[in-house]
Amino acid sequence: MAKFYGIGIGPGDSELVTVKASRLLNDLDIIYTPEAKKRSKSLALSIAEPYLSEHLEIKQRHFPMIASLEVKKEQWESISKEIVEDVKAGKNVGFITLGDPMVYSTYSYLLNILKNDIETQTIPGITSFTSMASELGQPLTMDEESFAVVPATTDVETMDEALKLHDTVVLMKVANHLDVVLPLLKKHQLLGNTFLVSHASSDKQMVMRGVEDLDVESKLSYFTTMIVKKHIL
Amino acid sequence: MAKFYGIGIGPGDSELVTVKASRLLNDLDIIYTPEAKKRSKSLALSIAEPYLSEHLEIKQRHFPMIASLEVKKEQWESISKEIVEDVKAGKNVGFITLGDPMVYSTYSYLLNILKNDIETQTIPGITSFTSMASELGQPLTMDEESFAVVPATTDVETMDEALKLHDTVVLMKVANHLDVVLPLLKKHQLLGNTFLVSHASSDKQMVMRGVEDLDVESKLSYFTTMIVKKHIL
Repeated sequence: MAKFYGIGIGPGDSELVTVKASRLLNDLDIIYTPEAKKRSKSLALSIAEPYLSEHLEIKQRHFPMIASLEVKKEQWESISKEIVEDVKAGKNVGFITLGDPMVYSTYSYLLNILKNDIETQTIPGITSFTSMASELGQPLTMDEESFAVVPATTDVETMDEALKLHDTVVLMKVANHLDVVLPLLKKHQLLGNTFLVSHASSDKQMVMRGVEDLDVESKLSYFTTMIVKKHIL
Repeated sequence: MAKFYGIGIGPGDSELVTVKASRLLNDLDIIYTPEAKKRSKSLALSIAEPYLSEHLEIKQRHFPMIASLEVKKEQWESISKEIVEDVKAGKNVGFITLGDPMVYSTYSYLLNILKNDIETQTIPGITSFTSMASELGQPLTMDEESFAVVPATTDVETMDEALKLHDTVVLMKVANHLDVVLPLLKKHQLLGNTFLVSHASSDKQMVMRGVEDLDVESKLSYFTTMIVKKHIL
């Protein structure tokens, strides 16, 4: 029976796709892929490319990143409707997503809209933050330690409390929030314990150990994450 | 040049190994694998099995799980010494680890001991908690939400604060700590918002939605994790 597959394709390196995802990608009839800006080629698609069959139909769809919730919802509803029609017509349909489909992915919304209408399956992917920890050779967590993943777009109090509570904190999407993040790291005396990674596991990867030299004006890519570790190995 | 590879092989399903890990596993000369109990076959090894070459030498080594830090350290030192000798003799050596090598893995200790003596590379793996979230069809985190991963072996205050602070909390190793975990979930009125998964992504997988029926006497496997979500989709 035809299904809808949500497929995590990892942080950037095509070899960090799972064996299961690579097999499914090859078997699919149609793939939907998000296009952040109109007519720009999807990063997700270029990662998945080595596994795609010749017969695959690619439907690149625009997901507005900056828009009212109402506009976003309309777009998700419309794409979900298309997907349901394709699956009901007997096509195996995939939606590919950077990293893992259950960690900050638009896929969650689509799944929620269409899960009662068609059969679905979600395939986990390597997250950007575990990939970064491997690159750095720094464990996210050991023994009785805890860690948290917090987007820098949240309120200051949540970041502050998380930095107090956990041994390791992953701060996502820091690029446009250095005015909030840097003073917090300074307050907790963790500037020197912070690793910064841009474009994890791609050609453009950039790594910093210690962010004392960053300032509020520093220009960083959208795909920039910090790993703040109280105990560096 | 010969290297030491730390390889994450995911939560249980051999197809959830990455393409990179599957290629490296096939290329290795020697593999080290932890044996939790003496003479028991390593779960990690059975997951990696489809990718191992005929010529591979398997060195199953005992890692004491319950022992003083001193005893553990002696064992890590001794295994690290063996690995360094193998790599210096020109062998490509791998250490396989369940889930991800940077999340609660003994590999972190080995890496720390031998990283200055030989070349090393760490390959990330699918974590048990992202795999569970995919199975459940429940996102770990969306938009401006945050999540934390906390072992139930830590102090009550850390679990309590994490349940207060984050939208989603993954509680690891809950099996022998229900006496602490269940009252906390009750206090936060989250018993009905808790998913429990044992043996994720294996034949023995067991899932519960809502843990109101668990009590302190309930017998759970060591590989049991809870995902506590304030907002269930």
